[in-house]
Amino acid sequence: MSLTPLDYLAAREDRLVEDLKDFIRIPSQSGTPAKQPDVLRAADWVARRLAAAGLEHVSVCPTGGHPVVYGDWLHAAGAPTVLVYGHYDVQPAEPLHLWTTPAFEPQIRDQKLFGRGASDNKGGVMAAIAAVEAMIACSGRPRVNVKFCIEGEEELGSPSIGAFVKAEANRLACDLVMSADGSMWTADQPQVVLGLRGNFAACLRVWGPSHDLHSGIHGGTVLNPLEALSRMLASLRHPDGRIAIPGFYDDVLELSARDRAAIARVPIDEAAWKSEAGIPAFHGEPGYSPIERTWIRPTVEINGLWGGHQGAGPKTIIPTEAHAKLTCRLVANQEPERMFALLDRHLAAHTPPGVQSSLVAEGGLARPYAIPGDHPANRILTEVLTEVYGAVPYETRTGGSIPVLAMFAESLGAPAVNLGAATPDACVHAPNEFVHLRALHRAARSMARFCERLAAARARGPG
Amino acid sequence: MSLTPLDYLAAREDRLVEDLKDFIRIPSQSGTPAKQPDVLRAADWVARRLAAAGLEHVSVCPTGGHPVVYGDWLHAAGAPTVLVYGHYDVQPAEPLHLWTTPAFEPQIRDQKLFGRGASDNKGGVMAAIAAVEAMIACSGRPRVNVKFCIEGEEELGSPSIGAFVKAEANRLACDLVMSADGSMWTADQPQVVLGLRGNFAACLRVWGPSHDLHSGIHGGTVLNPLEALSRMLASLRHPDGRIAIPGFYDDVLELSARDRAAIARVPIDEAAWKSEAGIPAFHGEPGYSPIERTWIRPTVEINGLWGGHQGAGPKTIIPTEAHAKLTCRLVANQEPERMFALLDRHLAAHTPPGVQSSLVAEGGLARPYAIPGDHPANRILTEVLTEVYGAVPYETRTGGSIPVLAMFAESLGAPAVNLGAATPDACVHAPNEFVHLRALHRAARSMARFCERLAAARARGPG
Repeated sequence: MSLTPLDYLAAREDRLVEDLKDFIRIPSQSGTPAKQPDVLRAADWVARRLAAAGLEHVSVCPTGGHPVVYGDWLHAAGAPTVLVYGHYDVQPAEPLHLWTTPAFEPQIRDQKLFGRGASDNKGGVMAAIAAVEAMIACSGRPRVNVKFCIEGEEELGSPSIGAFVKAEANRLACDLVMSADGSMWTADQPQVVLGLRGNFAACLRVWGPSHDLHSGIHGGTVLNPLEALSRMLASLRHPDGRIAIPGFYDDVLELSARDRAAIARVPIDEAAWKSEAGIPAFHGEPGYSPIERTWIRPTVEINGLWGGHQGAGPKTIIPTEAHAKLTCRLVANQEPERMFALLDRHLAAHTPPGVQSSLVAEGGLARPYAIPGDHPANRILTEVLTEVYGAVPYETRTGGSIPVLAMFAESLGAPAVNLGAATPDACVHAPNEFVHLRALHRAARSMARFCERLAAARARGPG
Repeated sequence: MSLTPLDYLAAREDRLVEDLKDFIRIPSQSGTPAKQPDVLRAADWVARRLAAAGLEHVSVCPTGGHPVVYGDWLHAAGAPTVLVYGHYDVQPAEPLHLWTTPAFEPQIRDQKLFGRGASDNKGGVMAAIAAVEAMIACSGRPRVNVKFCIEGEEELGSPSIGAFVKAEANRLACDLVMSADGSMWTADQPQVVLGLRGNFAACLRVWGPSHDLHSGIHGGTVLNPLEALSRMLASLRHPDGRIAIPGFYDDVLELSARDRAAIARVPIDEAAWKSEAGIPAFHGEPGYSPIERTWIRPTVEINGLWGGHQGAGPKTIIPTEAHAKLTCRLVANQEPERMFALLDRHLAAHTPPGVQSSLVAEGGLARPYAIPGDHPANRILTEVLTEVYGAVPYETRTGGSIPVLAMFAESLGAPAVNLGAATPDACVHAPNEFVHLRALHRAARSMARFCERLAAARARGPG
């Protein structure tokens, strides 16, 4: 019996880990101006690795922003075509002092590989490359056609790939998108993801006096921009957790009782969740369970704020201006453009006389995304995950965003399934991000097996 | 006729300016850990300059914090003793990019000398040294005994000098304190200052999740510490400007109708004030004029805040913690310790469930200070200022704080008069701080003349 892709992957697990370490060492922070050369280095690294895996037509394709890395293997005439999506950019690693080992010097401890991007999303991208390399290497197996589309601006909200996918719709044409930017319920429990939240980001600036004022000379007679900012930010929600922006919930698609019952069947370990988050209690919109608040309800979050004196000791000033970074997570059928406009209008209405404010969009917009649980691709995915993990996957949603999935659906007419190596405990976007090594290898095996099973299903004809 | 101190000062105006430039070149930011060597350099510079002026027993005296520079000239037996107070430390110069010329490279433009500390307080200290040098040099004039007490922690709230003054009460014994850390109404209009606000500083920390959380995975179900901070800060005041901290106004001494009428007689150019502050409108406690809000009413100000992501681009996190720097300006008879306790209790009561908070005092406490308008020293000061400026001084108060004045009153039993080179337009505590050169020279002349007149009054006996 000839070598199978799974045999091939099993024999090369060490190489997959070493490749991922090399990939992590490139600090490809797309949101950090000083790291732009590293972002390009990461694109080049992906292109070389795709070529080494046997992909053809490999190219680093310019976009309006960071390039997309493309490659394909199209020698399975008549078989379906799978487009692999992932991203080579990462979140900022700051605050650096909270990392046990440096963010860009990957280290293995307790069967986990630590480093910025280990789970989000360099692990998933590397697993997909390994899976496709295995399929190409093991000739004679039933196989699919494969295309890779790996972007460099996911952590910015994918501002450029929408135009790229639209312009390159012929080159990217496929039957199905396999997103490598997915996650599993745990390292041992798989999931099939039916929905993702949308997202947009904005920066709020509030300004008052033309320069920092002495708080003794002026204090008591000038509206302090930091006080105004605090008041404006506090106005975004009611104290009980409901969003207070007028009209914000108008377009939210309320789920049926059946859908909410399906969510209730997913076993959520709320104690473990609180422990992982390091919080004493949940807080959020009344009338919804904690998991519903993150899966099917929108949120507005303050991601950062700053203004005035932030160093050691006192400084007795009334600062000239203040800033806050905001993001909103959206659910079907909220349109990001409309939600930004509602936020903008609310903040303008809550800008006290004596200061001025502006709200500027940052990064791209992500629409919410959904795929039916009984889609044929999800039926195959459920089979494969059950085999690889030895456990039946949960049907879940996720509170995070992958903006490009809605773009693929729109421009290519292709649905997407979610695979990947990330897990909720993996500190993505935070210090000490890691990937479980067994989740990494299971991701690679699931991807290879899913492609084979997809080809076999096509060969049998529609089921 | 022999040379008078005023002749001496007139002949050496250039030297006073060059000395002040040298003094400004030392970046003695007492609140900046990296600048501690420069703070000590500034103390040494003052000591050398005092010795060069003819002061004796010059010494750099250790305290619990930065040293006090002492020097005396005690050869006027039977004459009164004046203790000159000032400070050699300065506020941080940040944000540096807003300075037209570098903060510690003094430059003259339009008859103003620009540089951090030019007005607050290196100009006043240098004027006092020049005045005393002139008095010592011109022997044969009626003169007073002089002591200098120049501290290095005024910008931290004078945390160490209280204990120093108490321990060194014999060495510092005097009839009157002449503060060189005062200011004039304008460069051409003098004032006699009857009151100063007290002050204390604190740092608020609010923390929730044990690490930064992904806003997609957790957003909607965790109380965001930045939202909590905003809500807590917004709770400090009613939107109309009244402080909302329970009990905060209880100890405020309401002024009599006569005192408020005296304040109303001081011509306040509110349009110019707004223009200098760069604000479209005043904002503050109803029922009080803008100048009353800064002179006779307390305030609570947010001097800075920070938390979470503050760099370029978006970062989709719920941050683990947030911080704010706060100061309160106090008026008689508010006790700083009690006001800190009220603020602490209010913030604790407004800390929402799901986060924790702490309030830590920073720097020292300043009690409010007052001196009667008809005090004999103020009568002499009024004469001298009328002569030097060619204008009758206004009787004013000031919203700023000089913590040590209450300490001198307590430990030495000596009242204080306020002189100095600062003016309200001088951007103290802000970028592009300057001193008007004519205000600098008038300060030196006023100080010399005040000391002579004080001695003459004593010689004549109580009036």
